[in-house]
Amino acid sequence: MKLENPSPIEWKFSHRAEQLQSSAIREILKITMRPEVISFAGGLPSPETFPVDRMRAAFDSVLTRSGKVALQYGPTDGYAPLREFIAESLSTDGAKILPDQVMMVSGSQQGLDLLGKVLIDEGSKVLVETPSYLGALQAFSVYQPKFESVEMDDHGLVPSSVAAKGAGARLLYALPNFQNPTGRTLSVERRYELVDICARLGIPLVEDNPYGDLCYTGEPLPKMLTMNPGGVIYMGSFSKVLTPGIRLGYVVGPTTLIRKLEQAKQATDLHTSQLTQMVVHEVIKDGFLNEHIPTIRDLYSKQCAAMLEALGKYFPEGVTWTRPEGGMFIWVTLPKHIDANQLLAQAIEQNVAFVPGGPFYANEAETNTLRLSFVTVPPAKINEGVEKLGKLIKAKL
Amino acid sequence: MKLENPSPIEWKFSHRAEQLQSSAIREILKITMRPEVISFAGGLPSPETFPVDRMRAAFDSVLTRSGKVALQYGPTDGYAPLREFIAESLSTDGAKILPDQVMMVSGSQQGLDLLGKVLIDEGSKVLVETPSYLGALQAFSVYQPKFESVEMDDHGLVPSSVAAKGAGARLLYALPNFQNPTGRTLSVERRYELVDICARLGIPLVEDNPYGDLCYTGEPLPKMLTMNPGGVIYMGSFSKVLTPGIRLGYVVGPTTLIRKLEQAKQATDLHTSQLTQMVVHEVIKDGFLNEHIPTIRDLYSKQCAAMLEALGKYFPEGVTWTRPEGGMFIWVTLPKHIDANQLLAQAIEQNVAFVPGGPFYANEAETNTLRLSFVTVPPAKINEGVEKLGKLIKAKL
Repeated sequence: MKLENPSPIEWKFSHRAEQLQSSAIREILKITMRPEVISFAGGLPSPETFPVDRMRAAFDSVLTRSGKVALQYGPTDGYAPLREFIAESLSTDGAKILPDQVMMVSGSQQGLDLLGKVLIDEGSKVLVETPSYLGALQAFSVYQPKFESVEMDDHGLVPSSVAAKGAGARLLYALPNFQNPTGRTLSVERRYELVDICARLGIPLVEDNPYGDLCYTGEPLPKMLTMNPGGVIYMGSFSKVLTPGIRLGYVVGPTTLIRKLEQAKQATDLHTSQLTQMVVHEVIKDGFLNEHIPTIRDLYSKQCAAMLEALGKYFPEGVTWTRPEGGMFIWVTLPKHIDANQLLAQAIEQNVAFVPGGPFYANEAETNTLRLSFVTVPPAKINEGVEKLGKLIKAKL
Repeated sequence: MKLENPSPIEWKFSHRAEQLQSSAIREILKITMRPEVISFAGGLPSPETFPVDRMRAAFDSVLTRSGKVALQYGPTDGYAPLREFIAESLSTDGAKILPDQVMMVSGSQQGLDLLGKVLIDEGSKVLVETPSYLGALQAFSVYQPKFESVEMDDHGLVPSSVAAKGAGARLLYALPNFQNPTGRTLSVERRYELVDICARLGIPLVEDNPYGDLCYTGEPLPKMLTMNPGGVIYMGSFSKVLTPGIRLGYVVGPTTLIRKLEQAKQATDLHTSQLTQMVVHEVIKDGFLNEHIPTIRDLYSKQCAAMLEALGKYFPEGVTWTRPEGGMFIWVTLPKHIDANQLLAQAIEQNVAFVPGGPFYANEAETNTLRLSFVTVPPAKINEGVEKLGKLIKAKL
């Protein structure tokens, strides 16, 4: 039986919720799910790289061997053998990382939310790259900080800009490898400079590293975590090297911080799926990623090369773009007078999509920028899509 | 290479984080993991009830059929067929629930966190039962509300107390069925009264219902959601009827609220594991819960009866307890002068554990109360544990 004519609720949302918006990217993704669209918009890894059979075998084995443990509530900081594996894999000769410094999270987006929860008060100064990862801006925004945008160039974050703007900041958020959205990488020299400046100013340095293993040539650059384990908060993810849909990542840092994050996580969702953690441990414990990651690098580097070639062929003078050596993204800068939002509207009419650069800026947006992802589009389609975009841009010159 | 002698970070946590504490229960659980301990402390369902084989078959089937979709990023509001299933199962003749009113979350604890995020400002009035679910108090506390404790008696929340204290509250949090921690159930008459009062005062009524299906006799009581779908926020969970370790729950409410929660969830963890949702849908879509839930009821009702019998046999006059007709908990009230924390210290020495009642109170705690869970302990051990507790209490009279 229902109440007759109840008064409708007039929703009163919290101040933090009033300014929440849906992510521009996810809205664009909805439009571009149609199969006829050539989409450079996604931040999704290629499903071709998912080790489905291996995951299935691991679910079967974990549930057969330890089903009742895997399906029961688990510890808030995560499955111990997986935390041990991660600590071991991050340790270097000079910097030993202990399992107690590792907390598992439900995808590294949750790591960002928890960091915001425990480190940011309303009005706190938070340093971010220019441009920065949209998901981090969203996660932190909820806690109402004052963002300070730090300069970047082709070698990544500019350390002197951190020194100039950093005093009193609650954290610096950096994506040093094949940054989302620009594809840029922070040089090794600057890593040392940055770690040093942050230590001197007492600023926790967040090193978010979802793409670091996806280097097309050579070895991954040294992690800032290993340069100063007492001052760096490292974030890792299985989304780009295994699969994203299972939502599994980790935060590594000094134990004082990790214990506080653990309390926050307990209040937030108790713990991350025990089963998922046991299965991922089962999949990777014997070194599977060492053979698997090279296959992802190989696929992405070919598609990146195809896109760089197409850009050189079809994009007119006056347009510039980054040349990433890993990861998933290329960043394009159009002549100042071209608005990427308007370009997107026209591109979608021609069944091509990308993400305009504006939402990646914490402060003043450069609206003549855009992000292209090449990882889910085969080379022939990359060529076709970039050619169409090139024509649209030329018509605006 | 490591930085030489870097200054250690002096952590500055947010105001909300400074008051975060580890859950008393989870700390006690750590102590009581030893196999020789008879633990009435857990809030964990019995692993005997986990349908491990069925889950394993579903993982196999989903990964075989749609592995690449299941392992990819998914929509923030959840897997559509599962949302449709839930909407359908909650709909009644008078109150149709639409899939758009359902959002999947990573366990209902996350639902509580998201509700806090979008509804609570610092100092907002939040109404809770006396005592209330500890996890809800923790989740909401992060957003720094002012809790107002509403009276309860053996028939659950007292509606007149809500009417007296409710004006201007941002929400009322209620656990109407076999409440955690008391095991009490809100009578049907009071449900109508409560829904009516909340509608008139414009207070969103949160109906948290993890235990409702675990009624030992008869049918579950009508949901407040169906009495006023425009004013009630319903929370459901698969933790107690399927398995908790996978972390899957849902929030149901008016679409204005659900869309705001969706934005908050996007910033919090993007979405809940797509694979988990597809597997749970696979497990339940043909009515499995209709045959499975009665087996859980049967197990728990026998152990509840064993505990009630033991309480009658061993607990002295002056001690009272609730007589739940479902769920997982019995609430014990000791004579005023006995402190349950001191009793716990003595009980642990004798390898018996329970949870003291204090942490379940938002305001003044009644320290002469405690919560007993019977679901993971076989009847003979229940008898033994309650006998030991009874002796300890008698020695304090």
